[in-house]
Amino acid sequence: MATPTSVEVINPFIHSTTNALQTMAFIKPAIGKPFLKTSQNLVCDVSGSIGISGETTGTINVNFGTEVICKIVSNMLGEAHDIIDETVTDAVGEIANMIAGGAKGEMQAKGMNFTIALPSVTVGKNHSHAHPTDVPTIVIPFSMDQGDFAVEVCVKEQ
Amino acid sequence: MATPTSVEVINPFIHSTTNALQTMAFIKPAIGKPFLKTSQNLVCDVSGSIGISGETTGTINVNFGTEVICKIVSNMLGEAHDIIDETVTDAVGEIANMIAGGAKGEMQAKGMNFTIALPSVTVGKNHSHAHPTDVPTIVIPFSMDQGDFAVEVCVKEQ
Repeated sequence: MATPTSVEVINPFIHSTTNALQTMAFIKPAIGKPFLKTSQNLVCDVSGSIGISGETTGTINVNFGTEVICKIVSNMLGEAHDIIDETVTDAVGEIANMIAGGAKGEMQAKGMNFTIALPSVTVGKNHSHAHPTDVPTIVIPFSMDQGDFAVEVCVKEQ
Repeated sequence: MATPTSVEVINPFIHSTTNALQTMAFIKPAIGKPFLKTSQNLVCDVSGSIGISGETTGTINVNFGTEVICKIVSNMLGEAHDIIDETVTDAVGEIANMIAGGAKGEMQAKGMNFTIALPSVTVGKNHSHAHPTDVPTIVIPFSMDQGDFAVEVCVKEQ
């Protein structure tokens, strides 16, 4: 069985995140070293949260600062965006969806089965996330010219 | 088929929220009139987000101000809490779980089937949520002596 901290869980989210950014925004982010989250001090300005449930269950957060997400959305839509408006929050939900959907295919091939919930997007300067303390949360850091962003993966098998 | 705005969807969340608060914190909140969310201007300091997926899919947010959640957690644990720390975020995740779990039973009896993801809890002064614009989001307002809180329900059938 894949543990929540194993490469079988982490790699699909690395692949789906880089694929989402490349496909939608023509950006190839650099991938940092994933680490076990031990505090809430991972702040952002806009984030997408999406649940997965079934035999494998969890929650995924993708966290952006304002400058980073505005660059991504500007690339996606081919027009300048410099504030977090409804266009940007829609895009964050779509990115969260793509990350979960992309990871699903790769995880299913390893025997981890789940369905994907609807995303919710959070807007607020310097917010952070907490997860159930009995399930490890892995942070996958990414960086691009405009700054860093992160994907938090909190997944367990039933 | 129940529509996302019908009483078949809204009532289970009213019942499970009041039940969670009464059971866990001995608080009986007053229930306001549910309304269709049309803007992001529903701010809070701590919130629990939990996805549901399957034949019925969605995302639920339960949004608290600091004073309200501290009163709830103080009652739950029988000791004073006045800041949003890990004890409080754990409790918010547990409340989100109970709300989704309680609604599940009532919704399944009406033919709406889903499984429940893990909750994620957001901490940040004055944050708000956005949802997929093609699915209506219903806000259920509640009030207690310490202030108001709200449950946002964004649910669709596949």
